[in-house]
Amino acid sequence: MRTGIATVCLSGTLKEKMQACAIAGFDGIEIFEQDLVTSPLSPEDVRKMAADLGLGLDLYQPFRDFDSVSEDILQENLRRADAKFKLMSRLGMDTILVCTNVGTATIDDDSLRAEQLSRLAELAGNHGVKVAYEALAWGKYVNDYEHAHRLVDTVDHPNLGTCLDSFHILSRDWDTAPIEAIKPEKIFFVQVADAPKLSMDVLSWSRHYRVFPGEGQFELAKFMGHVARAGYSGPVSLEVFNDVFRQSDVERTAVDAMRSLIWLEEQSAKWLDAKAASLAAEGVSGDSPANAAGRRRYPMELATLPKVAEPAGFNFAEVKTDEPAQLETLLGQLGFEFDGRHRTKDVQLWSMGHARVIINEQAPSHSEPAIAALGFDVDSPVIASARAQQLKAPVVPRKVQADEEVFQGIAAPDSTEIFLCQGSPDGTAAWTSEFRQTHEFGEGLEHPIAGAQAVIDHVNLAQPWQHFDEAVLFYTSALALEPQPFAEVPSPSGLVRSQVMVTSNRAVRLVLNLAPMLQQEPGQKGNGARKSYQEHIAFAVDDLVATARRRRHGGSTSSGYRPTTTRTWMRGSPWILPSWPPSRN
Amino acid sequence: MRTGIATVCLSGTLKEKMQACAIAGFDGIEIFEQDLVTSPLSPEDVRKMAADLGLGLDLYQPFRDFDSVSEDILQENLRRADAKFKLMSRLGMDTILVCTNVGTATIDDDSLRAEQLSRLAELAGNHGVKVAYEALAWGKYVNDYEHAHRLVDTVDHPNLGTCLDSFHILSRDWDTAPIEAIKPEKIFFVQVADAPKLSMDVLSWSRHYRVFPGEGQFELAKFMGHVARAGYSGPVSLEVFNDVFRQSDVERTAVDAMRSLIWLEEQSAKWLDAKAASLAAEGVSGDSPANAAGRRRYPMELATLPKVAEPAGFNFAEVKTDEPAQLETLLGQLGFEFDGRHRTKDVQLWSMGHARVIINEQAPSHSEPAIAALGFDVDSPVIASARAQQLKAPVVPRKVQADEEVFQGIAAPDSTEIFLCQGSPDGTAAWTSEFRQTHEFGEGLEHPIAGAQAVIDHVNLAQPWQHFDEAVLFYTSALALEPQPFAEVPSPSGLVRSQVMVTSNRAVRLVLNLAPMLQQEPGQKGNGARKSYQEHIAFAVDDLVATARRRRHGGSTSSGYRPTTTRTWMRGSPWILPSWPPSRN
Repeated sequence: MRTGIATVCLSGTLKEKMQACAIAGFDGIEIFEQDLVTSPLSPEDVRKMAADLGLGLDLYQPFRDFDSVSEDILQENLRRADAKFKLMSRLGMDTILVCTNVGTATIDDDSLRAEQLSRLAELAGNHGVKVAYEALAWGKYVNDYEHAHRLVDTVDHPNLGTCLDSFHILSRDWDTAPIEAIKPEKIFFVQVADAPKLSMDVLSWSRHYRVFPGEGQFELAKFMGHVARAGYSGPVSLEVFNDVFRQSDVERTAVDAMRSLIWLEEQSAKWLDAKAASLAAEGVSGDSPANAAGRRRYPMELATLPKVAEPAGFNFAEVKTDEPAQLETLLGQLGFEFDGRHRTKDVQLWSMGHARVIINEQAPSHSEPAIAALGFDVDSPVIASARAQQLKAPVVPRKVQADEEVFQGIAAPDSTEIFLCQGSPDGTAAWTSEFRQTHEFGEGLEHPIAGAQAVIDHVNLAQPWQHFDEAVLFYTSALALEPQPFAEVPSPSGLVRSQVMVTSNRAVRLVLNLAPMLQQEPGQKGNGARKSYQEHIAFAVDDLVATARRRRHGGSTSSGYRPTTTRTWMRGSPWILPSWPPSRN
Repeated sequence: MRTGIATVCLSGTLKEKMQACAIAGFDGIEIFEQDLVTSPLSPEDVRKMAADLGLGLDLYQPFRDFDSVSEDILQENLRRADAKFKLMSRLGMDTILVCTNVGTATIDDDSLRAEQLSRLAELAGNHGVKVAYEALAWGKYVNDYEHAHRLVDTVDHPNLGTCLDSFHILSRDWDTAPIEAIKPEKIFFVQVADAPKLSMDVLSWSRHYRVFPGEGQFELAKFMGHVARAGYSGPVSLEVFNDVFRQSDVERTAVDAMRSLIWLEEQSAKWLDAKAASLAAEGVSGDSPANAAGRRRYPMELATLPKVAEPAGFNFAEVKTDEPAQLETLLGQLGFEFDGRHRTKDVQLWSMGHARVIINEQAPSHSEPAIAALGFDVDSPVIASARAQQLKAPVVPRKVQADEEVFQGIAAPDSTEIFLCQGSPDGTAAWTSEFRQTHEFGEGLEHPIAGAQAVIDHVNLAQPWQHFDEAVLFYTSALALEPQPFAEVPSPSGLVRSQVMVTSNRAVRLVLNLAPMLQQEPGQKGNGARKSYQEHIAFAVDDLVATARRRRHGGSTSSGYRPTTTRTWMRGSPWILPSWPPSRN
């Protein structure tokens, strides 16, 4: 699949945007006119820079309000088009996006529109330019891709084709199956965007709330499947207007965008396989019209990724603190056992049953305790890591000694380190043998509950605002967690945007929460949201009442942790919540 | 471009090979029959594993000695083919490689061969299998791809097509231009391999000396350009028999292989652009027959990479040692100035003009001094790093303080760290301000030569045997150095395989040397070759005689470095050679 992105998706200057696209690995870009106008680069500079960066200049956009006008306005529009075509020649570009008229259309007559589009195509042909005609969801007379394509068909000019934009199609709930009937040589361009299902006017929805594929709720794999079955093999390009992305770090957003296309490619291939299987089951040939000539593959080559099964459970949670004594006390009171210090690293291990907590003492002084890392049980850490890396997840560099388990670590968007651990049938973890009971810590604590069983029940992570959507896609694509419908939960300090991510058996539940007032400056490192928002790790225990009693008796206000109910809160730091019943034993 | 690799290229079990291919990011693989036979996996296991890993099973190979035989042998061959086709159905595979007959051919008659291939195609069709017929360079009667394709054309069966293998074509010096005349639907598969130009029998050459594209001397971009102009858009798959690769770490070889295809893709796109430009200059339409229908792109989508210009020069060299005193003495005697210690890292900087040497004191005790890192001046470190990462170069993790220059570092195959540094017009380096003269070191040394000019002239690196070819491709593709014809240089301990890599103005010259007896075990970390082989850094100075005299007067046998001529050798460690004249000032 040829990957692309519109410069309008990103923040910064045109030069910065182009560099970020090259770094993220896009094949091509759409030049958004405003980005060119505000750039000090000449069209020739842009052309050379794109060539040097290995980026195709795949689409010039947008050309607005052309058709359905009176003859005098049409003459002006053709002069305007002529100027754009000359500019495109300087850029070395050959495809322009023309949207259906929103502002100046006065005549609702398809035969007039066809005639006007035909004149545009003829002019474009003289300049070697191809016009990709797109139905805007709020176009005055033409707002449906099938209508727009009927006009393209009527004109039947080699320089006029259709542009399909998933947002304009799916936001209106148009049926996508008829895409398969479009001749592939008449599809000039495909744009994709996802969006949360919101009830608002479609223009505002489009301009502010589009997200990258996998971050919203549109059926994009199906849309792309129909496009592939039509025989299209050109660029698939992101056009996402989003207020957050345009304020965020450009390189990072470009990588998030690229991840979304890689993921969409895989999902589209899966949809196609399922479609072929269901057609075969019905006894129908799986070949779409474009695929009837005995080709075993669709013209659009869809890359796949190493598959991972959803994680079987949490392997461990790691909390970083510069005051380990408080956490030691709390864990001891909860009935956790001190398993010792690591042979070579400055960390302690505490466990109750299969609930394992690592205390990392290397936090900077006076920092709040924070959840620094989560381990997940997977079938093959190496394959899972390969998949994550192909999805552009940053690898966590980690020093290991020769005889230690090599953890495959990747960084989540909020900088939590995610470790892919070898799961075991009995829920044990081989790496715990790297910890040694030194009796230096853990003395004087109450004796742990003998044979107490517990697991990590769920984890709640505070997300910085600019990486919330990215985090949903990250956990979906790299870790095979399933996003649940998102919610807005009332809290004492306002609505909290909350996204639950789970495995199908709910053995892993991860809650991503965004408190709107806890904003972090773009470019700020780390997760500032943690400073003022409660994260928590919840444990499922065998006997909640016994655990709670124990906690109450051992409770000491000097530790700074005040038990309220059976929920144990730690203000501005991970709070630890015994819950019930255990989801795994 | 759909990327593939034959399992025969790699070491290990079929399972290990498949995992390594998935990790490296290949789209598909060729199953080499022997790998399947020796695997404990059932065909169904292999099919499922490939699906899970996201790998297409693109070609079953090889089926040998089918055609040009008497009728009784043909009957046997058809029975053999029938069994393979049934096996392929269990694997879910649909394409098989059939090579021209080498061993059992007795009848040289094209009409008989066509009839026999037609019967094979008919049988294959009944099983839904496609036969890709390949001319082996040493085929008894058919050893030329045009001959093989004439047979395919004669038979004209939908289940019979051509397989093009660059080795079999280029090793015989067949003209590749006629590839463009082959109908794209008749090209069933394309295999690529590179090779050094050796004068030996072609079978031995093929079985032992194939290398990945970019590591040999074949004109592969031209070969691929013709294939793309023919309109082919199927898999491009590596089939490389090489004694070294089959003994090396499988994951690492797979990444090296993937890098070679990414590089080949870029080179092929360049060749196509140059071809189109030269046709345009001749006034000929640039369209090949397959491209005549007004498509602006070839059906095979060739990805490009961010381009980098060749480096302008060396920025610095870093030597790691646990006995810095010796190196300090030597550098002082040569007229280098001690510029101080780094603010936060345990390193010193010494310089003479623009020749900068960093002494890193963090070597393990009793290790030999070694060249640990090289800095190169590039236009844009960020873009150069993006290119290197897209070429699968491992990133060097590096901790920096907020106010320090962020170096873009990648690891060369021999584990030397390569830093991409911001070049400056006057040859200075901004990062040197991070070093502070402490007077703790450098005192008591002779006063440096005032205003002495010097640059790093060239660097010689010892290469471990199993990464020599990989290193050539690495420096070619990631750093835009140009390999010179390789040489075998006599040394006191035998022939040294030597590969010089240069920039066009020779401002950067890097010599990769492999001494055959200095073998390193596969899996051994680091560069064992360094233990017993001299690497060196050569400096170009203004006044060689003055520098040499100075060196002689300051020479102290207690330093352990004994000057021989003006060349200063350090046994088993980097030796430092003042040379002349300066290639850059």
